[in-house]
Amino acid sequence: MRTELCEKLGIEYPIFAFTHCRDVVVAVSKAGGIGVLGAVGFTPEQLKAELDWIDEQIGDLPYGVDIVIPQKYEGMGDTSPEELEKQLWSMVPEEHIAFAQKLLADHGVPEWPDGTKSMGLLGWTEATATPLLMEALTRPKCRLIANALGTPPADKVKMIQDSGRLVGALCGKVKQVKAHKEAGLDFIVAQGGEGGGHTGDVGSIVFWPQAVAAAEGVPVLAAGGIGTGQQVLAAMALGCAGAWTGSLWLTVEEAHAEPAQKESLLKASSEDTVRSRSWTGKPCRMLKNDWTEAWAAPGNPEPLGMPLQGLVSGDGIRRTAKYASVGDCQKVAFNPVGQVVGQINQVESTRNVVFRLITEYVDALERVNSLMPEA
Amino acid sequence: MRTELCEKLGIEYPIFAFTHCRDVVVAVSKAGGIGVLGAVGFTPEQLKAELDWIDEQIGDLPYGVDIVIPQKYEGMGDTSPEELEKQLWSMVPEEHIAFAQKLLADHGVPEWPDGTKSMGLLGWTEATATPLLMEALTRPKCRLIANALGTPPADKVKMIQDSGRLVGALCGKVKQVKAHKEAGLDFIVAQGGEGGGHTGDVGSIVFWPQAVAAAEGVPVLAAGGIGTGQQVLAAMALGCAGAWTGSLWLTVEEAHAEPAQKESLLKASSEDTVRSRSWTGKPCRMLKNDWTEAWAAPGNPEPLGMPLQGLVSGDGIRRTAKYASVGDCQKVAFNPVGQVVGQINQVESTRNVVFRLITEYVDALERVNSLMPEA
Repeated sequence: MRTELCEKLGIEYPIFAFTHCRDVVVAVSKAGGIGVLGAVGFTPEQLKAELDWIDEQIGDLPYGVDIVIPQKYEGMGDTSPEELEKQLWSMVPEEHIAFAQKLLADHGVPEWPDGTKSMGLLGWTEATATPLLMEALTRPKCRLIANALGTPPADKVKMIQDSGRLVGALCGKVKQVKAHKEAGLDFIVAQGGEGGGHTGDVGSIVFWPQAVAAAEGVPVLAAGGIGTGQQVLAAMALGCAGAWTGSLWLTVEEAHAEPAQKESLLKASSEDTVRSRSWTGKPCRMLKNDWTEAWAAPGNPEPLGMPLQGLVSGDGIRRTAKYASVGDCQKVAFNPVGQVVGQINQVESTRNVVFRLITEYVDALERVNSLMPEA
Repeated sequence: MRTELCEKLGIEYPIFAFTHCRDVVVAVSKAGGIGVLGAVGFTPEQLKAELDWIDEQIGDLPYGVDIVIPQKYEGMGDTSPEELEKQLWSMVPEEHIAFAQKLLADHGVPEWPDGTKSMGLLGWTEATATPLLMEALTRPKCRLIANALGTPPADKVKMIQDSGRLVGALCGKVKQVKAHKEAGLDFIVAQGGEGGGHTGDVGSIVFWPQAVAAAEGVPVLAAGGIGTGQQVLAAMALGCAGAWTGSLWLTVEEAHAEPAQKESLLKASSEDTVRSRSWTGKPCRMLKNDWTEAWAAPGNPEPLGMPLQGLVSGDGIRRTAKYASVGDCQKVAFNPVGQVVGQINQVESTRNVVFRLITEYVDALERVNSLMPEA
């Protein structure tokens, strides 16, 4: 299943692994795919440290970095991160903060030891994302940049391509595929509604081929619902140039996660996820729990838009991650994951997952070939 | 792509076409697949007439009949259709009837010429479905029976199998697959959330392989999101034994439908469908319109369960079908269809659709094979 993107990136298999863990990035690239580090949760200093480690461990292999630069968001136009954040805070109703804090308290989520809140903006605006991008562009082995949400601004596309790297972006609708193609992106990640994180609601089996058609030759990577080699083959059958996987890497041996969080994921069925705006302000698929139910219940505050809801939920994201195994933390924790979570029931090494994908792919292709009259 | 089910049914391709139109049934079987007539909208007398016609036209080829026998429904236990219906009517709030009738009136949907309402129960209970099944079992060329909703009762499974026919049923959840397998069904139709009509919310790409695993060797037909041969190949890659298609046949040349209804379908995108309980009482995917929006809006009556909501909506189903092109009928019409509707933009002959599926399948398989190192 070697495609043109493999040649351009110098990788063996078109398996793109989105992860927040540097160890997984390195292990996937070493197994013949390519690891893509999700940078949104890091400060520029933290990202520098992560990339230093990756550069040291990965040998001569390539990797990617995924950032989030929305094209439009409330408060857009301001440039200094500090000023922007101040202005955004003024748009958040007290009621929302109180509701979020009460949910956390009711579930026994510990406060920070020093009594502070950690309500800072995540890297979900151009102002906060740009320093992350600049850091990534200093790394010769970082060969691709992906934007997790929307078409990147033209100046960023040019900057990335002029540096000799590939730039792509995620999407869940045909009109977004067209916008990505217009912007001259090098690849497009088409995510069906099954997928974890920000997602549309058209299913992969329907959306992937529509994306391939709309991309008019720009390679499309299939996302949303890929956890086995059979699913990779389905994506290739539908004209995709590779697989963009995320959920698959949350529970591997190398993934940094609290045991309680891994446990939540390993025991979840495909019916246990929901698309909810309760964490980021945009529809995002995650494990269903008390937090998602509370923000959907009539009479309770409705989630704000992006990035305002992120200000409301940011403290909860950090506290439930830090204290994942304490009290009922998991019932109000942010666990973005796709429906494919139902297939993932045991911890595997990253290397094994990549090899399993390939073996399953080859076996499935053989089986399909055997159904043809000549066989 | 010949599978065991093909042998058992004496068909060329494992393409199962669910349709309410007898002409489509015959044309699909003649093209090498198998047509399956949806019987739920017919009285036993009407079904007799349809099957007479099919038997006359189809030569020696096989076909199937699809019925709806829910295992559980409100009012279950009553047996006489008349008594059951009377009892069910007593459970329907006046408010719901008034709300439905006002929606129809507000959109200029004509009343019946004689001023009557046609509010009768559709064949959605065991009492109403049994006579339909008995009629189908008198036809030697009817080689399969499918239950559109839930595992058929054990006595019906036995009756069908003892008659030498295959029996199967649809489902959208793994636990339903297991129930079907336990009941000894001959095949299981696994429908992803993309599909039209009654559907769960797990996407096809995730649900199909889970269904195949849970079916433990019972053949699984893939439903939900199949409109091209590439999508059939994706289903086969995921271990399915064939494709169960529905939306694809709504707009073919042979399909009986008012021009306005075909037009609504041909121009719809994949984002124009919604899962709604507003017609049948169970989540069912259909074109989004004023009717579905009204029943979802806060403050309005909430849809009742099955089959009560069918009593509320039955008159609307029949009037909007009869007067499909009048006034704003399409805005309150029942148009069950899957997300694949976005791929269907032109009228084709049934025969061409079947041949297109096969050609696309073969081409896609060749392309995938060409990506392997040996090629």
